Amino acid sequence: MANAFVNEPGDVTARLSDYIVSVRWTDLPDDVRREALRSFVNIMGCTIGGACHEVVDLADRTLGVYAGAQHATVIGRGHQADALHACLINCLASSIYSYDDTHAEAVVHPAGPVATAALALAEQRPTSGADFLLALALGIEMTCRLSKAISVPPAKGPVAWSQTGITAGIGAAVAAAKLLKLDATRLQYAIGIALSQAAGFRVMHATMVSSLMPAQGAQTGLRAAVLAERGFTASLATLEGRYGFLEVFAESPNVAALADGLGERFEILRNTYKPYPCSIVIHPIIDACLQLRREHAIEPGSIDAVRIKASPGAMALCDRRNPQNELQAHISLYHWTAATLIHGVARIQQLQDATVRDAAVVAFQDKVSVVGDAGMAADAAEVTITLKDGRSFACRIDHCIGSAGNPMSDAQLTRKFDELAEPAIGATRTKELIDRCWSVELMTDIGDLARAAI
Amino acid sequence: MANAFVNEPGDVTARLSDYIVSVRWTDLPDDVRREALRSFVNIMGCTIGGACHEVVDLADRTLGVYAGAQHATVIGRGHQADALHACLINCLASSIYSYDDTHAEAVVHPAGPVATAALALAEQRPTSGADFLLALALGIEMTCRLSKAISVPPAKGPVAWSQTGITAGIGAAVAAAKLLKLDATRLQYAIGIALSQAAGFRVMHATMVSSLMPAQGAQTGLRAAVLAERGFTASLATLEGRYGFLEVFAESPNVAALADGLGERFEILRNTYKPYPCSIVIHPIIDACLQLRREHAIEPGSIDAVRIKASPGAMALCDRRNPQNELQAHISLYHWTAATLIHGVARIQQLQDATVRDAAVVAFQDKVSVVGDAGMAADAAEVTITLKDGRSFACRIDHCIGSAGNPMSDAQLTRKFDELAEPAIGATRTKELIDRCWSVELMTDIGDLARAAI
Repeated sequence: MANAFVNEPGDVTARLSDYIVSVRWTDLPDDVRREALRSFVNIMGCTIGGACHEVVDLADRTLGVYAGAQHATVIGRGHQADALHACLINCLASSIYSYDDTHAEAVVHPAGPVATAALALAEQRPTSGADFLLALALGIEMTCRLSKAISVPPAKGPVAWSQTGITAGIGAAVAAAKLLKLDATRLQYAIGIALSQAAGFRVMHATMVSSLMPAQGAQTGLRAAVLAERGFTASLATLEGRYGFLEVFAESPNVAALADGLGERFEILRNTYKPYPCSIVIHPIIDACLQLRREHAIEPGSIDAVRIKASPGAMALCDRRNPQNELQAHISLYHWTAATLIHGVARIQQLQDATVRDAAVVAFQDKVSVVGDAGMAADAAEVTITLKDGRSFACRIDHCIGSAGNPMSDAQLTRKFDELAEPAIGATRTKELIDRCWSVELMTDIGDLARAAI
Repeated sequence: MANAFVNEPGDVTARLSDYIVSVRWTDLPDDVRREALRSFVNIMGCTIGGACHEVVDLADRTLGVYAGAQHATVIGRGHQADALHACLINCLASSIYSYDDTHAEAVVHPAGPVATAALALAEQRPTSGADFLLALALGIEMTCRLSKAISVPPAKGPVAWSQTGITAGIGAAVAAAKLLKLDATRLQYAIGIALSQAAGFRVMHATMVSSLMPAQGAQTGLRAAVLAERGFTASLATLEGRYGFLEVFAESPNVAALADGLGERFEILRNTYKPYPCSIVIHPIIDACLQLRREHAIEPGSIDAVRIKASPGAMALCDRRNPQNELQAHISLYHWTAATLIHGVARIQQLQDATVRDAAVVAFQDKVSVVGDAGMAADAAEVTITLKDGRSFACRIDHCIGSAGNPMSDAQLTRKFDELAEPAIGATRTKELIDRCWSVELMTDIGDLARAAI
């Protein structure tokens, strides 16, 4: 029998699409709606805070040569551009400090690509705050579900993929498609078009490209949705078809993670916000260092040795000494141990080159030793500090701040927003913006918020 | 010992980059320079011919909303746009009839993304014809070498990848980087940036996205080069680093295919041009049908049955009956057998919906049966036609026209160019353009040619 053309709607793609097309804001449980809002507040702070980063500046100036009509705001950079350029630059900004959000199980940073694609579109097509948050929630949901389908057991997928690069474009496409009110068939095309650009692997990490991958996801997702709206087609079985997404990216996919419990189980409830600008597997170590320093009034000069028991994830990703620059520092647990114990805080200043190359911070890393503990959860760590006078203090963190078991409070999210936004746009505008962000559900046109964040 | 940061130049990436940076047009053997020219002539015809296709029109109109300043020509469409938009649309046009070129061993269509990216760039930065052809040759070389490294034994890579989507962006980046005269380090960054967008899998085939994948390769390759020029960085070991290209895309890569014999063995000599607008594995079947029809003056109405022995590649990709539209017809050997025997030619008209849906062509497919022959080469086929009067004629094709063993002549390439270009821009302009294309090596500014093809 001859082969079939792979153009029939597949069961899974169709189920996801039907759900996305039909669900309304008021269908979402209260906690899901609240988490959509918190995801938005967090990513807006990250975007404004990253807007003037030199890498974002470089990309905006270089690619601005090719940008089109000024329909969307390049946030925190004082100008507008076409929506595809704006969402690329905005998402790059949201990701550049590695300070955004994380779905730990799926190893993905979902909100940046989804929010920036939806926001750039919303400036062209007036959108209420509630519609925007619904699109954001759905985009995050799909990004996380696709990521889990190729990485969470029983799925076996290569760790080498950069999950955000692979699945964030789908989240962006889904959010944009929801705002465009595409029907289920066009939504399936949008998913297919976006997946044709699913890309990224981990050799890129700790380079500028690390943040370009989610940014490209935002752009290709938005592009996929507008192409689908106008009639551009793709396979209708991109996820489950022969030679499709599941087959390509996973040795044995976790199909249940993709579509089971739609509308009942929400991945956004497991999305978390970073309290420190670095890989989340370093966070429990930072928590322990801060706690020890504070409780025992430890002066950095008095420290003889720091011994760390770290999770397997921390060992695999961040057991790296002597980063040479900010981008490498994102994934060096030695740097963060040194900088945190010396400075007593773990913020953007501790990430920047001046700190990374500071002789005292560099030298301090020699005092730090780390061993992996196979039983240690990703949000846990144990740190023991021995002083030169022989005293020794230990601290075990079971659920670091910002993890799913110990989430950041709204007040902490506001302080993080302030930390990020104030240096960029000043205290007055920051206060105005954070108030508008927290009440975004009530806005009739969220484009006003984007334009206020110019 | 702590993990290293993956930022040291790797051996293979460095060797490739050093070669690309240093090689000059006059270093290339005569046959390689000739093939670069033939690749260019062929792809320019495809681009002009595809420019007014409804899918290209849809993409240009939809994405034109986001396009920037008019620095580059959208070929055959009468307007200009920013170079990133122009090369996306031009490459889409070059690919839309599936009439472009093929490196059969690497299963890749290299010239479209490379040529369109380089041409759009050359309109902004005046470039001689010889420099352009050198960049084209190098881009094609790298596209084919990367493709072979992940797909040709001893490499084991999943057949599910769409090779052109995965590697064409690198070819485009290399060509653009050569025109920009990037140094070896920046070239390595350009390769890394482009590879962060390496994407595409085969569920997309026979849909509009099939041609969007190479187009996105052209665009991301050009973007990678201009970002690298301005200082955007990536890993320096994107190909061979841990969690890098070779590891991600091949179970066991063929590293020798990547860098051995650089400057001595040229993949462009195995690049071939399509005489028919469909998958190359159908071509020997078309050859046989045309030959039988001509030699025996066979009327389609007199045919009782057509029996085909086909290669394993033809069985895997094109053993599909009753395509519903032009995009599906690209990969239906039944359609092409029917259309060729009824019409006596195999051109764009035979691909279009009017033919695909013609009742006589549809009905004729029922007369066609095919069996796979494991020993049949990809460029071979055997067709036996039995007439209603009981007579039977057989034809075996060992190397179909357009294959590496039976390449199209320059005259055939000119006729193909005419077939594609005349309906789009008329006979007079076609004649002028084809003459300029064949003498492009002598041009001082190839941008003039692009602008003449508006």
